[in-house]
Amino acid sequence: MRILLIGDIVGKTGRRLVREHLARLKRETPLDLVVANGENAAGGNGLTHDIMDELLSAGVHVLTSGNHIFDKKEIFQFIDDVPHLLRPLNLPPGTPGHGYVVVSPGGIPVVVVSLAGRAFMPFQYDDPFRTMDGLLSSLPEQSRIVVVDFHAETTSEKAALAWYLDGRVSIVVGTHTHVQTADERILPQGTAFLTDLGMTGPRDSVIGVQTELVIKKLTTQMPVRFETAHGAGQFGGLLVDVDPETGRSLQVERIFYRE
Amino acid sequence: MRILLIGDIVGKTGRRLVREHLARLKRETPLDLVVANGENAAGGNGLTHDIMDELLSAGVHVLTSGNHIFDKKEIFQFIDDVPHLLRPLNLPPGTPGHGYVVVSPGGIPVVVVSLAGRAFMPFQYDDPFRTMDGLLSSLPEQSRIVVVDFHAETTSEKAALAWYLDGRVSIVVGTHTHVQTADERILPQGTAFLTDLGMTGPRDSVIGVQTELVIKKLTTQMPVRFETAHGAGQFGGLLVDVDPETGRSLQVERIFYRE
Amino acid sequence: MRILLIGDIVGKTGRRLVREHLARLKRETPLDLVVANGENAAGGNGLTHDIMDELLSAGVHVLTSGNHIFDKKEIFQFIDDVPHLLRPLNLPPGTPGHGYVVVSPGGIPVVVVSLAGRAFMPFQYDDPFRTMDGLLSSLPEQSRIVVVDFHAETTSEKAALAWYLDGRVSIVVGTHTHVQTADERILPQGTAFLTDLGMTGPRDSVIGVQTELVIKKLTTQMPVRFETAHGAGQFGGLLVDVDPETGRSLQVERIFYRE
Amino acid sequence: MRILLIGDIVGKTGRRLVREHLARLKRETPLDLVVANGENAAGGNGLTHDIMDELLSAGVHVLTSGNHIFDKKEIFQFIDDVPHLLRPLNLPPGTPGHGYVVVSPGGIPVVVVSLAGRAFMPFQYDDPFRTMDGLLSSLPEQSRIVVVDFHAETTSEKAALAWYLDGRVSIVVGTHTHVQTADERILPQGTAFLTDLGMTGPRDSVIGVQTELVIKKLTTQMPVRFETAHGAGQFGGLLVDVDPETGRSLQVERIFYRE
Ligand SMILES: [Fe+2]
Ligand SMILES: [Fe+2]
Ligand SMILES: [Fe+2]
Ligand SMILES: [Fe+2]
Ligand SMILES: [Fe+2]
Ligand SMILES: [Fe+2]
Ligand SMILES: [Fe+2]
Ligand SMILES: [Fe+2]
Repeated sequence: MRILLIGDIVGKTGRRLVREHLARLKRETPLDLVVANGENAAGGNGLTHDIMDELLSAGVHVLTSGNHIFDKKEIFQFIDDVPHLLRPLNLPPGTPGHGYVVVSPGGIPVVVVSLAGRAFMPFQYDDPFRTMDGLLSSLPEQSRIVVVDFHAETTSEKAALAWYLDGRVSIVVGTHTHVQTADERILPQGTAFLTDLGMTGPRDSVIGVQTELVIKKLTTQMPVRFETAHGAGQFGGLLVDVDPETGRSLQVERIFYRE
Repeated sequence: MRILLIGDIVGKTGRRLVREHLARLKRETPLDLVVANGENAAGGNGLTHDIMDELLSAGVHVLTSGNHIFDKKEIFQFIDDVPHLLRPLNLPPGTPGHGYVVVSPGGIPVVVVSLAGRAFMPFQYDDPFRTMDGLLSSLPEQSRIVVVDFHAETTSEKAALAWYLDGRVSIVVGTHTHVQTADERILPQGTAFLTDLGMTGPRDSVIGVQTELVIKKLTTQMPVRFETAHGAGQFGGLLVDVDPETGRSLQVERIFYRE
Repeated sequence: MRILLIGDIVGKTGRRLVREHLARLKRETPLDLVVANGENAAGGNGLTHDIMDELLSAGVHVLTSGNHIFDKKEIFQFIDDVPHLLRPLNLPPGTPGHGYVVVSPGGIPVVVVSLAGRAFMPFQYDDPFRTMDGLLSSLPEQSRIVVVDFHAETTSEKAALAWYLDGRVSIVVGTHTHVQTADERILPQGTAFLTDLGMTGPRDSVIGVQTELVIKKLTTQMPVRFETAHGAGQFGGLLVDVDPETGRSLQVERIFYRE
Repeated sequence: MRILLIGDIVGKTGRRLVREHLARLKRETPLDLVVANGENAAGGNGLTHDIMDELLSAGVHVLTSGNHIFDKKEIFQFIDDVPHLLRPLNLPPGTPGHGYVVVSPGGIPVVVVSLAGRAFMPFQYDDPFRTMDGLLSSLPEQSRIVVVDFHAETTSEKAALAWYLDGRVSIVVGTHTHVQTADERILPQGTAFLTDLGMTGPRDSVIGVQTELVIKKLTTQMPVRFETAHGAGQFGGLLVDVDPETGRSLQVERIFYRE
């Protein structure tokens, strides 16, 4: 089973690149499942129903997210009803929406999880390690393929979770830093891991935001309203081949295009 | 001029990989200047005189550093006398050691700077933007080649500094996260940039530390003494060709070997 | 029922002041229950069995704690066996020791809880709000008196928890900042609240640490080993009268002595 | 010389209490100088020209501030022209407004400084210790009375600065936590010190914000828009008698009224 993972999609540029590169990739290789992080898809902050529809139409099957998931207020009107749009699983009980979903590309069950880290994050999430233990022990025996988008800041928390889950899930990919890391690998027990998928969004920017605004904020230490950059883009992702019998990852290929 | 940059060298494994890969790379290509971050070279924490000598003998010309530079107390005995070992420039006036050095590979002056970021760092550094403005305005006209190791946590602070310095320095590379990023490029005005060089150190680890110890800390939330991992290693770096006439970078090549 | 609460006891000076002032206070007024935070009792970091014994002998009935509880390694040898020494309740399941205890001064059950906050704390604790909901719903009907030591950094998290628990517990007192606040009051539903009890320890210090060392760290941004200060001391606490029938607090009196 | 210091004035309730209690205090005692922190005076966030006028008319002579100073955009239109409204001194060069002012109650020069801390603050300020060294060395000999509002989060940074400046300034008072501390004292060399003046604002609130909103944010970990509370208020301050000959503080009296 071939799974494509895409990191934080940022704004209009990010959505355009998802459209173009998903179409291209599908011509080149069969994609059984496409998972993308949509927390910045609506102009950098959150997600609307229209934009969710646009991304699902473009070929994304599951949208994960992170700290920006509730930025647009309209999300509360529909997030309970859209199982393929996920918010972090390790939010308090009672949080609107769903933290994981079971999809069945080609009839094979795949569990996709949106999870958030704790170090240096703007919200206080529950322990991601215990949350994953709880989820995994609740899944039926035949759920061998589990894909985790771990939305976290530090490399150490991401790597620790991946090693902790090695052999128990198929894939752990990080998101949130908006810069792709170069360390894709398959851990000894079969879990594919990449510290961060990076952003799919505007190329000439500071993690998606207009460069001048971030520089202004850091050099003046005054409040600056961030605006999403536009223009040329970049697309990043990770292609993983998973053995449907065992859930182990067999091969990883990192993708990074820059216009 | 061909410059090789190496990220945080972690422990004995990291030093072995520097030795082996520097020797190999020098057989393949001329290296005019080798800059490496040594803050974790002594068992993961700091640097001793012997280990500094070992790295300089292996072919490193300048050692930059970061938050771990003063972890080993013996450093205070010699850091003032070793111009090729740098501590972050943006520490308070009066801090032992030097924050930059001018070297002259092939008779061409190159300024190498060790600089630290402010977001989520364990120490409070002075404004890196203003520090660089001050340094650049103090340099003589003919110092066209400036290389900055920006030791910082967040992708946004690193990218903002690189764009801020674009056209004014030759190279900005990030260190500190211990994971190499995949976003090497030359910015529009000629500054080569990579968000993080990544660690040169033990491969099967959490950013150099034994995996079990980091997992123990994060799952128990109790004090855990970290120990550097051993065994197979990885080597990462960035090769940059700089035009000695203009100081602009002409070409970047990312290097990542895993044993 | 008259309950005395004492904040973080720091080092030898702190222990001396507890001894002296507990003796004095007991001569002045009957104390049904004495609760003190002992996380810094052993030279500023953690607690030993001898020091626990010393404080219990001095008249403390229950020792609460916080982020420093596991600093001294010998604590793991006995913490499971000493129900009157508490570690934060909202640590992961399986953490050694106990997070609350039921004591019975004069035959009336009183539940004492050690709880830790999440904002800016050096460890990642579970949600203190949900933890308290869980504990309170598990207590038998007759447990009307509940005392919470909330070890947290920010005034906002402490006040929010106190208001959240108003009417459901008898007392919420903060600890951890080592400076007593002046805002004692009884909230509308009967919960006594003080943002921070402050430190009982060396008077001429920076929250218990030798003044010069903290200044050195903040002005040099280099690693500095902190040592507990000695000499003249200060004692702080809160006296609360609780109605044993309803569990509501009837009166609060803040105590602050400086030698 | 008798100086009254007032902490963060929060919203309409805070302004009402300043009016009422300043009038009352002036009937009871001569006040040579009134300094108040105005960063939350306009509905909890920032300051407008009208509100500045209102507070100056009520009897405040100098308004200090902190991280909220630039929240209302209109401030940029007038802050350069109003020497008695201060923003933190340790912002970057070029920041609009002034960081200190020299006033002359009764013909005696008094330097009032607004300064911000670095630990856990939402902006990155320059080193407050070095900033004060620089300011003090630039002042003329006859400026013996210096008053510092140190807007900072942690008790340790505040105490360290006060001890660092002991004997060099007359008063160091902390602000920002919105809860008054009970530790007023005169340090050995004559500097009056209080860790935090506390808020003058709505009594039944979480540091000025509506209680339910803060609880909602902390229990749901979702974005919540904070609104300032109303109703009954509280007033807090510190009265200091300073010897105009030496600049040393002679006496401190903490003030805390709750409606
Ligand atoms: Fe994102
Ligand atoms: Fe994010
Ligand atoms: Fe490092
Ligand atoms: Fe580092
Ligand atoms: Fe403490
Ligand atoms: Fe503590
Ligand atoms: Fe404030
Ligand atoms: Fe503030």
